[in-house]
Amino acid sequence: MNFCPHCGSAEISKLIPAGDNRPRLVCGACTTIHYRNPKIVAGCLPVWEDKVLLCRRAIEPCYGLWNVPSGYLENGEGVEAGAIREVWEEAAAKVELTYLISLYNLEKINQIYLQFVGELVEGKFAVGEESLECQLFTEADIPWDEMAFTSSTFTIKRHFLDRRDGTQRLHRASYPTL
Amino acid sequence: MNFCPHCGSAEISKLIPAGDNRPRLVCGACTTIHYRNPKIVAGCLPVWEDKVLLCRRAIEPCYGLWNVPSGYLENGEGVEAGAIREVWEEAAAKVELTYLISLYNLEKINQIYLQFVGELVEGKFAVGEESLECQLFTEADIPWDEMAFTSSTFTIKRHFLDRRDGTQRLHRASYPTL
Ligand SMILES: [Zn+2]
Ligand SMILES: [Zn+2]
Repeated sequence: MNFCPHCGSAEISKLIPAGDNRPRLVCGACTTIHYRNPKIVAGCLPVWEDKVLLCRRAIEPCYGLWNVPSGYLENGEGVEAGAIREVWEEAAAKVELTYLISLYNLEKINQIYLQFVGELVEGKFAVGEESLECQLFTEADIPWDEMAFTSSTFTIKRHFLDRRDGTQRLHRASYPTL
Repeated sequence: MNFCPHCGSAEISKLIPAGDNRPRLVCGACTTIHYRNPKIVAGCLPVWEDKVLLCRRAIEPCYGLWNVPSGYLENGEGVEAGAIREVWEEAAAKVELTYLISLYNLEKINQIYLQFVGELVEGKFAVGEESLECQLFTEADIPWDEMAFTSSTFTIKRHFLDRRDGTQRLHRASYPTL
């Protein structure tokens, strides 16, 4: 932030406001405190029979690597709606959400991943605009060495674990847990 | 946003950028797209024996009403750490988190609540800076008509339900579900 979005002043300082306990961006002209908060990345691992649907990214970062369909939650959107939208955008697929499988903190980059497991409706999918390709993988075929993000690896591993255990539970971790 | 935080220009328009599908605040001078995203409100319901700890708010909104200790997640913070911090700030109490009990969407105000249940360490608490008072309540004594937020009511109800059922599960809903 170079200029105050409220008044346009360039007098932006990082300081601890009175009554607060951490540094904030404060405008010296209009005294507005500009708070910054983590973003939610919502996603869903689509499941069909013994397989999961992954997408190969057509965008940076991690162009060409595989991912669980996920993206920033939008204003006006609930987490479930965001996860369903991302599957649509990345894989042109519909899912029925089963359960929230992971809460994954990336404290250093201010992202909180919330990923669901969902049933891929009728097993249908195509290739969304943000993907190079989309493909169903059995556990044995997952391209573990070509995954875009640790959060995806975490979620896929927990999904196959839950399946073996016959459970549907929320798994929580922080980066770099796999 | 009246001025572009990047270049200081007042030429801010709401329009759908090329390749996007929803309106964004875009700077006409430097072309920066200013995204806005929902905020996470992290919290924890502290439990001691058959009681839960609530705080009466000393701040607006909802001054004087009761709440589950909760607040905006900070940059650099995981959801668990944020929930523990909020209990400390509002009730000067330590908790050991047990499980995530609620994901509660407030789509219209761009907030996503993530609340835990936690064990109140040694049953100790005081009154935090943001509270008028803090008090342990049995289910029969909860001041249901003086609750600050529907998200708190939702979480407290689900806690007593889980207790009766002997389960620890995540409950998901959107405003105005109670
Ligand atoms: Zn200003
Ligand atoms: Zn600009």
